[in-house]
Amino acid sequence: MSNIFVPELIGTALLILLGGGVVANVILKGTKGFGGGWLLINFGWGLAVFTGVYAAFRSGAHLNPAVTVGLWTSGGDFFAGNADLGLDPIAANAGNALIYIAAQLVGAIIGAFLVWVIYKDHFDAEEDPGAKLGVFATGPAIRSLGRNFVTEVIATFVLVFTIIHFGPTPTAIGPLAVALVVVGIGASLGGPTGYAINPARDLGPRIVHALLPIKGKGSSDWGYSWVPIAGPLVGGALAGLVGGALTVI
Amino acid sequence: MSNIFVPELIGTALLILLGGGVVANVILKGTKGFGGGWLLINFGWGLAVFTGVYAAFRSGAHLNPAVTVGLWTSGGDFFAGNADLGLDPIAANAGNALIYIAAQLVGAIIGAFLVWVIYKDHFDAEEDPGAKLGVFATGPAIRSLGRNFVTEVIATFVLVFTIIHFGPTPTAIGPLAVALVVVGIGASLGGPTGYAINPARDLGPRIVHALLPIKGKGSSDWGYSWVPIAGPLVGGALAGLVGGALTVI
Amino acid sequence: MSNIFVPELIGTALLILLGGGVVANVILKGTKGFGGGWLLINFGWGLAVFTGVYAAFRSGAHLNPAVTVGLWTSGGDFFAGNADLGLDPIAANAGNALIYIAAQLVGAIIGAFLVWVIYKDHFDAEEDPGAKLGVFATGPAIRSLGRNFVTEVIATFVLVFTIIHFGPTPTAIGPLAVALVVVGIGASLGGPTGYAINPARDLGPRIVHALLPIKGKGSSDWGYSWVPIAGPLVGGALAGLVGGALTVI
Amino acid sequence: MSNIFVPELIGTALLILLGGGVVANVILKGTKGFGGGWLLINFGWGLAVFTGVYAAFRSGAHLNPAVTVGLWTSGGDFFAGNADLGLDPIAANAGNALIYIAAQLVGAIIGAFLVWVIYKDHFDAEEDPGAKLGVFATGPAIRSLGRNFVTEVIATFVLVFTIIHFGPTPTAIGPLAVALVVVGIGASLGGPTGYAINPARDLGPRIVHALLPIKGKGSSDWGYSWVPIAGPLVGGALAGLVGGALTVI
Repeated sequence: MSNIFVPELIGTALLILLGGGVVANVILKGTKGFGGGWLLINFGWGLAVFTGVYAAFRSGAHLNPAVTVGLWTSGGDFFAGNADLGLDPIAANAGNALIYIAAQLVGAIIGAFLVWVIYKDHFDAEEDPGAKLGVFATGPAIRSLGRNFVTEVIATFVLVFTIIHFGPTPTAIGPLAVALVVVGIGASLGGPTGYAINPARDLGPRIVHALLPIKGKGSSDWGYSWVPIAGPLVGGALAGLVGGALTVI
Repeated sequence: MSNIFVPELIGTALLILLGGGVVANVILKGTKGFGGGWLLINFGWGLAVFTGVYAAFRSGAHLNPAVTVGLWTSGGDFFAGNADLGLDPIAANAGNALIYIAAQLVGAIIGAFLVWVIYKDHFDAEEDPGAKLGVFATGPAIRSLGRNFVTEVIATFVLVFTIIHFGPTPTAIGPLAVALVVVGIGASLGGPTGYAINPARDLGPRIVHALLPIKGKGSSDWGYSWVPIAGPLVGGALAGLVGGALTVI
Repeated sequence: MSNIFVPELIGTALLILLGGGVVANVILKGTKGFGGGWLLINFGWGLAVFTGVYAAFRSGAHLNPAVTVGLWTSGGDFFAGNADLGLDPIAANAGNALIYIAAQLVGAIIGAFLVWVIYKDHFDAEEDPGAKLGVFATGPAIRSLGRNFVTEVIATFVLVFTIIHFGPTPTAIGPLAVALVVVGIGASLGGPTGYAINPARDLGPRIVHALLPIKGKGSSDWGYSWVPIAGPLVGGALAGLVGGALTVI
Repeated sequence: MSNIFVPELIGTALLILLGGGVVANVILKGTKGFGGGWLLINFGWGLAVFTGVYAAFRSGAHLNPAVTVGLWTSGGDFFAGNADLGLDPIAANAGNALIYIAAQLVGAIIGAFLVWVIYKDHFDAEEDPGAKLGVFATGPAIRSLGRNFVTEVIATFVLVFTIIHFGPTPTAIGPLAVALVVVGIGASLGGPTGYAINPARDLGPRIVHALLPIKGKGSSDWGYSWVPIAGPLVGGALAGLVGGALTVI
C-alpha cells in the first residue's frame, strides 16, 4: 500500500498545488501573474503534472482516477514495475484502484488547501466569488450540462488514450510527454469547460472550497460537480477499452 | 492495411480535434481561451501533432498527405518498421499512398466534426461567419492566390525537409521534434495564410463546414481551397526530392 | 575546491544574468520585451536555470543555497560524480557547503552587475524606483511577511523535493527537467512573492542594487530581505528531510 | 567542402527564413500573428535554430560565424564527426572557417529573400519603414553604440559558452538544447538590441534589405551594422577562450 497511497497522495497534492496555483495567479486580484492569459494557465497545469509525476514514480504516477480507470479497462497493469529500483508491478484490481483513487482525492484536498494558504491575501482582496471558486473547481463557459459532459468525456479520452500509446513510440522525454499532452488538451479542448479531465482535480478542491472560511465566497456549484467527475471517468474508461484493444499487437 | 488505415485515421482525427479545437478556443465567442493569441494557437497545433503522432506509431505517423508524398519522392519507405514491436516496413507505392491519404482525410473529417460537437454552444454564440469558417479551414490574411500558394509551398517544404533530416541527428525527444517544428513554422510562416501545410487538415474540415448545419455559417470559400491542397503537395514533393538527394551519404 | 567554486560561480552568474535580464526586459521602460507578461518572465527564469546548469556540470549545478541545504539534509552527496568525465563525488559537509554558498553569492552578484551593464540605458529611462529594484530583488505583491515566508517555504519545497526525485524516474532530458519545474513554480506559486526560491538569487542582486549608483533608485527594502533568504532555506531543508526519507527504497 | 558549404548554407537559410519570418509575422501590418509579443518572437527564433540545426548535421550546424570563431578559439574541432554516418571530423582552421562563414552569409541572404517573398503583401501594406527594416536587421531600442556592442558581446558569450558546455552534461535532447538557450537569451538579453548574436543573421538580411525594391523602405542603417557583426564575433571568441580553458579536465 505504501507504494500506492503515499506517492499518489504526494504527487496529486503537488499537481493541485501547482495547478490551482496558476489559476489563482492568473485570476485573483493583485497577483504578479494577474491577467497572464490562457497559455500561462495551460503551461501551469502541464508543468503541475510534470512535477507531480516525479514524486509518484513508485506507483506509476496516475494522479487521476480517470487514468486509473482507463488503465484498468485497457487490460494492463496499474504499474509495470521497475526492476532497477526494485519496484514490483502493481496489478489492476478493485482493491488497488480504491487505494489509488482515495490517495488522489486526499492529495487533491491537501493541494487545494495549500493554494489557499499561499494565496489567502489575494482571496481576501478579490471581490468576485466566481473567481474564488474558479481557483478550486472547474465550471462551464456556457452552461449546457449534456454538452459539458461530452466535452469532458472527449478531452479525457484524448488524455488516457495517448498515455496508453506512450509505450510503443521511441522517446526518452519521460514525464514531459504527459505534461505536454495536458498543455495541448488545455489549449485545444479547455475552452468550454476548463478541462477538469480528472475527477480528483475537481472534487477535492471543490470540497475544500465548501469547507474553508474563504472571505466572500459564493456557491460551490454542486449542481455542476457531477460533470467533471462522470465525464472523465467515462472518457478514461472508453480510452482504456479502445486503446487497450488497438495496442495489442 | 490495418497498419496504415486505422492508425492514420485515429492520429489525424486527434490532430484535427486538437488543432481545430485551439482555433475555436481562441476565436469563438465566450470560450475560456478567447483572445489567447497566436502563440497559443501555435502551441495548440504543435501539441496536436504531438498527440496525433503517438496514436499512429504503426504507420509512421504521417497524418498529412504532404508528408506521404514527400517520403515517396525522397526515395525512402513510408515507414522504416520497428523490429521490437514486430512491425514490418511499409513500402512507398501508389497503393499504400492512397490508403494513407484516404485515412488522413477521413480522420480529419472526424476530428473536425468532434470540434463542432465540443464547441457547438460557442459556434451558436458567435456572430462572425468568418470566425466559424476559420475554425475549420485556413484562409489568407491578404488574398493573393499565387503568393498564398508559394507561401504554402515553402512552409510545407520546411516541414517535410526537416522531417527527412530527423534521422541523422542524434536526439531522443521522439514526437516532440516534429511538434516543435510545427510550432516554429506556425510562428514564423503562418502569418499570411494560417499555415495549412497539410491538405487533409484543410480539405477535411472544409467539407465538414460545408455539410454541417452550423448556425449562421457563411461561405466555405471553395475558391481558396485549392491553395492549401496544391501548395502543401508541391512543397512536400519538392522537399522529398531535395532532401532525399542531400541525405544520401 | 575548483570543482565547486568556479562552476557554481559561473553557473549562478549566468542564472542571474539571464534571470535578472528577463525581468529588466519586461518591466523597464523602452525595452523590446516591455510588457511581455508573466509567462515570458517564467520562461526567462526557467531557461536561465537551464543555461546555468550546463556551465556547472563539475559541481552538480546547485546554483542555489536552498538546493545545497536540501541535498545535505536529504542524506545524499552534493554531487554523485561522473566517472566518464573523471569527476569524483562531492561529499555533503559543512566545509563544502560553505564553498557552494559563497560561490553562489559571488556569482549572483556578478550576474546582477552584468544585468545593470546591459540594461543601464533602460534603468536611466525608467522613472519608477520600484521597477528598478524589481530587476534585482523579489518583493511581495501584498506585504504580509509571515505568509510571504510560508509561500517561499512551500515553493522552494516543491523545487528541492522534485530535484531529489529526478533520479528514479527514467528520462533523458537532462537540465531541461529542472528548468521546467522552475517555469512551473513561477507560473503557479510566484504570484504572491515573485518566487525567489533561492537565497543567493535575492541577496546577491539586492546587495548590487544597494551599492550601484543606479539613477533614481529607491530603497533596497532590506526589511523584506530575510523572507527570500529564510523561506527558501527552510523549504529546501524540509524538502531534503522529507524527500530523503521517502526515496529510500 | 560539400560537407561544410551545403549544410551550412541550407541550415542558415532555414534559420533566417523562420527567424525573419516570425518578426515579419509579429510586426508587419495585417498578418495573423500581428502584435503576438516578445515571447512569440523568442520561440520563433529558437525554433528557427532548432529547424536549421537538423539540416546541417554534416557540418556540426554552426549557422553562425560567432559559433565558428568560438569553436576555433576553444581549441576544439569545428565538428567532431560521426562514425555512424561516415562523417569525418572537420578541423578548425582558417580555410574551413572561411567556407563556414561564406556559406552562412549566403544562406542568410537566401533566407531573408524568402521572407520577403512570403510576406511581400504585408510589406506593401505596412507604412512604417522601421518595421520593414526590423524584419531583416536588428536595431537598438536606445541607440548607444558602445553599450549596444557590449550587450551583443555578453549575449553571444552566453550562447557560445553554453554550446561549448553541452558535451559534458548528460542529456539526449539534441538540437533542442541550443534552441532553448536561444529562446532564453532572447527573453533575457534581447531587450536592448534585439539579440543579433550572429553576424550572418544581421548582415545577410541587411544586404537584402538594401538591394530589394521593398515598397516604402527607409534606410538600411549601415551606421549600426558593425555592432551586430563585431559584438558577436568578440563575444564568441571570448567564450571559446574561456570555455575551452575551463572544460579541459
